[in-house]
Amino acid sequence: MDYKIIETKERVLADNDAAAEATRALMRKNGTLLVNLMGSPGAGKTSVLLRLIALLGDRYRIGVMEADVDSDVDAKTVAAAGVRVIQLHTAGLCHMDADMTARGIAELDVGGLDLLFLENIGNLVCPAEFEIGADLRMMLLSVPEGDDKPLKYPLMFTVSDLILFNKIDTAPIFDFDADTAAARIRALNADAVCMPVSAKTGEGMEAVAAFLEARIAERRAEA
Amino acid sequence: MDYKIIETKERVLADNDAAAEATRALMRKNGTLLVNLMGSPGAGKTSVLLRLIALLGDRYRIGVMEADVDSDVDAKTVAAAGVRVIQLHTAGLCHMDADMTARGIAELDVGGLDLLFLENIGNLVCPAEFEIGADLRMMLLSVPEGDDKPLKYPLMFTVSDLILFNKIDTAPIFDFDADTAAARIRALNADAVCMPVSAKTGEGMEAVAAFLEARIAERRAEA
Repeated sequence: MDYKIIETKERVLADNDAAAEATRALMRKNGTLLVNLMGSPGAGKTSVLLRLIALLGDRYRIGVMEADVDSDVDAKTVAAAGVRVIQLHTAGLCHMDADMTARGIAELDVGGLDLLFLENIGNLVCPAEFEIGADLRMMLLSVPEGDDKPLKYPLMFTVSDLILFNKIDTAPIFDFDADTAAARIRALNADAVCMPVSAKTGEGMEAVAAFLEARIAERRAEA
Repeated sequence: MDYKIIETKERVLADNDAAAEATRALMRKNGTLLVNLMGSPGAGKTSVLLRLIALLGDRYRIGVMEADVDSDVDAKTVAAAGVRVIQLHTAGLCHMDADMTARGIAELDVGGLDLLFLENIGNLVCPAEFEIGADLRMMLLSVPEGDDKPLKYPLMFTVSDLILFNKIDTAPIFDFDADTAAARIRALNADAVCMPVSAKTGEGMEAVAAFLEARIAERRAEA
């Protein structure tokens, strides 16, 4: 009997890319910059968001989608900062995909937003494989994790546009060399922008805010 | 037309559990204690392994299976410590499953080993879902990740038997309270054993080695 071979993973990724493209078009129409924020558990994603909200919140309308396997501790924290927030639960799934993101966008009401963050599940593997339709992939590598992570999770560093070395204030006590990390990233991704920051002390965060402002201005010019 | 609904995920997990049971039986027959070592990227899994090899390597025969998405930096490091090592590549997959583990065991030649570690992919989501047939699930929560991780990745903390709070020497500079972390873990898993350690300074590592020795003795008594 004849039979058909279905490449499950390729099919899933192709469907996902189509949904991501629809989100990308919607964001362009809306004049909203969508940022996919990724990193390991505890890399400081929520703390970086809070810094950016403090630096940009008076001039731009900001929304946040908090993705978690469970719990809503981050959504509560971010809501207290006064921005539009929605909590998304992945029910055990280790990443957000484009469909789940689109549903979050529909629920949140993104009309009038200049800047929309998706705080993805803390994970360096799966979120790198799934486009969500973001205009910018921003990734945190936290200093305590070590400067060898680009060697071990290459896809994440390959697909990210902006990579923040967070907790840089702790570099003296950890085996982390920012130049080594940056060289390892550039070997995978020549266009990646690397910035050392500390969400705790605020060091470097104004440069990140300025980077985002330039992207918001480009987006507005397109709309 | 009549049709059958296939619960893909349940089927995958049921097949996995059968393979895990076979590994468990093999380990029991061999008198080998199999430890599934899990944690976030950069939590210190390899450094903890090196400490345990230094503490136990003269009295026990130890093997290590290093699982990575890519690269072999950890396998090189561990091989230099003089134990039997194999590198497993998951080709993009975010966890090890029981079949992949069984293949690693077949390749490594585990005859005569007292203690066999699988260093799993750095990830707090997927490895928690897949039994590999381990006798002990040992998990690292590193201090810089924060004491809220049990709230956000509950399954990992629910399925782990021994949870090490690594990098405890850095607790004064991070928002990490060991009592709070332990209370959050106990709410999910009353039987979990929590131990503060530092693979860097060696603090607490002798207690972990003693814990493993007691389990090795039990395993030998069974064989």
